[in-house]
Amino acid sequence: MILRSKPQGSAPAACSAELIAVGSELVLGYVAERNCAFLARELTRLGIAVRFTTTVGDDEQTLAETLERAIARSAIVITTGGLGATEDDLTKKVLAKVTRRRLILHDELRSRTRARYRQRGAAVPAAVDRQALVLSRANLIENALGTAPGIQLSGPHYWLAALPGVPHEMEAMFHAVVSGLLQARFGLRPSSRLRILHCGGVTEAVVNERLRPLFADWPGCLGVVARPAGVDVWLLAALSAVSPSLRRRAAAWPSGRDALLELEREARLRLGEAVFGADDETLEQVVGRLLRERTLTLAVAESCTGGLVSHLLTNVPGSSAYVDRSVICYSNRSKSDLAGVVPQLIEEYGAVSAQVAWAMADGARRTSGCSLGLALTGIAGPKGGSDDKPVGLVHLAVSDSEAVTTTYRHFHGDRTALKQCFANAALDLLRRHLLKISI
Amino acid sequence: MILRSKPQGSAPAACSAELIAVGSELVLGYVAERNCAFLARELTRLGIAVRFTTTVGDDEQTLAETLERAIARSAIVITTGGLGATEDDLTKKVLAKVTRRRLILHDELRSRTRARYRQRGAAVPAAVDRQALVLSRANLIENALGTAPGIQLSGPHYWLAALPGVPHEMEAMFHAVVSGLLQARFGLRPSSRLRILHCGGVTEAVVNERLRPLFADWPGCLGVVARPAGVDVWLLAALSAVSPSLRRRAAAWPSGRDALLELEREARLRLGEAVFGADDETLEQVVGRLLRERTLTLAVAESCTGGLVSHLLTNVPGSSAYVDRSVICYSNRSKSDLAGVVPQLIEEYGAVSAQVAWAMADGARRTSGCSLGLALTGIAGPKGGSDDKPVGLVHLAVSDSEAVTTTYRHFHGDRTALKQCFANAALDLLRRHLLKISI
Repeated sequence: MILRSKPQGSAPAACSAELIAVGSELVLGYVAERNCAFLARELTRLGIAVRFTTTVGDDEQTLAETLERAIARSAIVITTGGLGATEDDLTKKVLAKVTRRRLILHDELRSRTRARYRQRGAAVPAAVDRQALVLSRANLIENALGTAPGIQLSGPHYWLAALPGVPHEMEAMFHAVVSGLLQARFGLRPSSRLRILHCGGVTEAVVNERLRPLFADWPGCLGVVARPAGVDVWLLAALSAVSPSLRRRAAAWPSGRDALLELEREARLRLGEAVFGADDETLEQVVGRLLRERTLTLAVAESCTGGLVSHLLTNVPGSSAYVDRSVICYSNRSKSDLAGVVPQLIEEYGAVSAQVAWAMADGARRTSGCSLGLALTGIAGPKGGSDDKPVGLVHLAVSDSEAVTTTYRHFHGDRTALKQCFANAALDLLRRHLLKISI
Repeated sequence: MILRSKPQGSAPAACSAELIAVGSELVLGYVAERNCAFLARELTRLGIAVRFTTTVGDDEQTLAETLERAIARSAIVITTGGLGATEDDLTKKVLAKVTRRRLILHDELRSRTRARYRQRGAAVPAAVDRQALVLSRANLIENALGTAPGIQLSGPHYWLAALPGVPHEMEAMFHAVVSGLLQARFGLRPSSRLRILHCGGVTEAVVNERLRPLFADWPGCLGVVARPAGVDVWLLAALSAVSPSLRRRAAAWPSGRDALLELEREARLRLGEAVFGADDETLEQVVGRLLRERTLTLAVAESCTGGLVSHLLTNVPGSSAYVDRSVICYSNRSKSDLAGVVPQLIEEYGAVSAQVAWAMADGARRTSGCSLGLALTGIAGPKGGSDDKPVGLVHLAVSDSEAVTTTYRHFHGDRTALKQCFANAALDLLRRHLLKISI
């Protein structure tokens, strides 16, 4: 899917990583594993290539087999899960066996752990002291958000960190401690090897076409991925390579931060206004920032998306500063009642039409007294489509005191995917409209 | 987290499975791997225990190493990904090498694949013929939704299926073909070994407390998992065991469908109305069915959830039959404008209060002419909380022509999690209200 890089002046080629997620709930399909994707992306940022991720159940023998293989073949091993206080939490016990260390009761940690359970008003588990067992010759990684600390230990050919499985605890510990330890140990610079640009209002094919000249000039450094929220462009520099065959292909590999900045400049030049943000930014955050900077308020009138546009907008903390209200007009009468759409308009042009989108956006703005109105009406399916107006068609409109702009799009997918596409198209229309308004 | 079962009269203990997801986009953290959770759950349903899932990049050496180990140690191996038409798609090539088979050009498949690309109006990729290569002594698994067929092959000690990585193609192929092949080969009965009960309006602790007597009587057969949409109870029977140590713990293991039905009856007896559905049913589907059966219509007034309740309700195809409209009142004035809340009520009791929830639900119903009004107002944070009204507090109300019912809940979590909890609490309040109305 994407070419990986030639290692050059950064992490050594030997510095490849392996991730292990522990938990029977994962191998049973109870809970979808999601820590590995986070860790893989963060390691990629640091220039470390993940070769394997393995998920295993809470089973001593399987876990031991997996850990033994990992420390034998990978320079960096990170495990998640199995550090809790119950009998099923085996990571420390198995790690001690595999790395030939002793388990020691850590008195201070024991008092701290007990105190933390009490402080939270939670019952102290019978086996609480298991959490105060530490491995000899290992470092503790503090867990500011939970009771199970992490462990870091090193052997002759491996560097290993064991983190808890609760995603927000694990993520906080990675950012606060693990990332720094890895940078120090392997001489890496943070955030200089990966940049993700997010594009809106364009298809994957258009992005590929615009970036075509760069693929040849920067072999192995770009990847394009279609996502529900738009199209992502991955810009990579100086990853330690995964395979010798791919390494050979990446001839002109940029080796540092400057090369990545140059590549980003080139990509942005070709993509223009389509780029709405980078890395962890979301479209709704960007739209929120643009509204806030211009001290504008917004009223939304949704039909086919059933509230998704408003849900996304209000996921952003502080969004009440600019989101005033929304109306979800699922019936024809509600379009008249809530957004002031003249019934004749619906009769003449149909509920899914540019005219009705126009009237909904303008009505939402006027009846609310907000600066802007945003509206959409479409067909999310699976039924309700016709030759003229197929499933996947959506009409969009944005209204301000001077004019109403309408447009339409046609997407493919199931009902859930279409709702996502429609909502993102509406937010992107609003974003492009806001860019034209000066601060 | 959950005890696994003793194998008894069902899948042989040797019948353990291993899943392999192939794709550099996965190990780079580009895309979160999600096929393995689906396959793990479906295999658990069939009584097959998954021991390992591994994710590897599009790299020949790594993939070969992983496949060799898998067919040596696991009776069932299922791979996803790497079957496409590009150079990076290596699964077939590596499988041929590892299982010592030849790759043969399949003429009919070649014509079919080319035709399919043309039929979709898609450009025929230069390397299209790679997709028409098949392994000697292997069965093809038809892909009704895409261009890459799957492959099934067997060796002396393994049974292997290679499926494409596109989730909806893979899932359809599993249900249409793979599940049946596994049942036939290993003498399994479908859907008799796992039942998931979904509970609403109760905490994990309450569910655990009510089921406590069953944990002793049915060791290793129950699991309780807190989910954003409520609490799930997993009932398991006759899984082939993963570990000998766990197998010993599960003494009184039920061996078949009757035992599972009996266990479900016992669990439902103790959980009562809290159980809203089973297996793939969602809360919004259940609410939709109850509304439809009673030919009732609904108007929603949301504040803190910003549209999420309506978004969930309208994810269900055909929901326009009962969802008439929603108003998202993010400002105080919009609560008066859209839901007819008297401003003095907000002044006196505050926007987050039982009184305002009451007025919003009743106003939404009256102004819309719908049979029912559902409303919620709360504090999703991270700011806006106080000692009296902390972040996580939500007031809920449901209104019909006879009365308004209000209640409140207090949840913990970040903004996104709280919106989810609030929305599910509202849907569950509506569900319990509908259960009291006869059809």
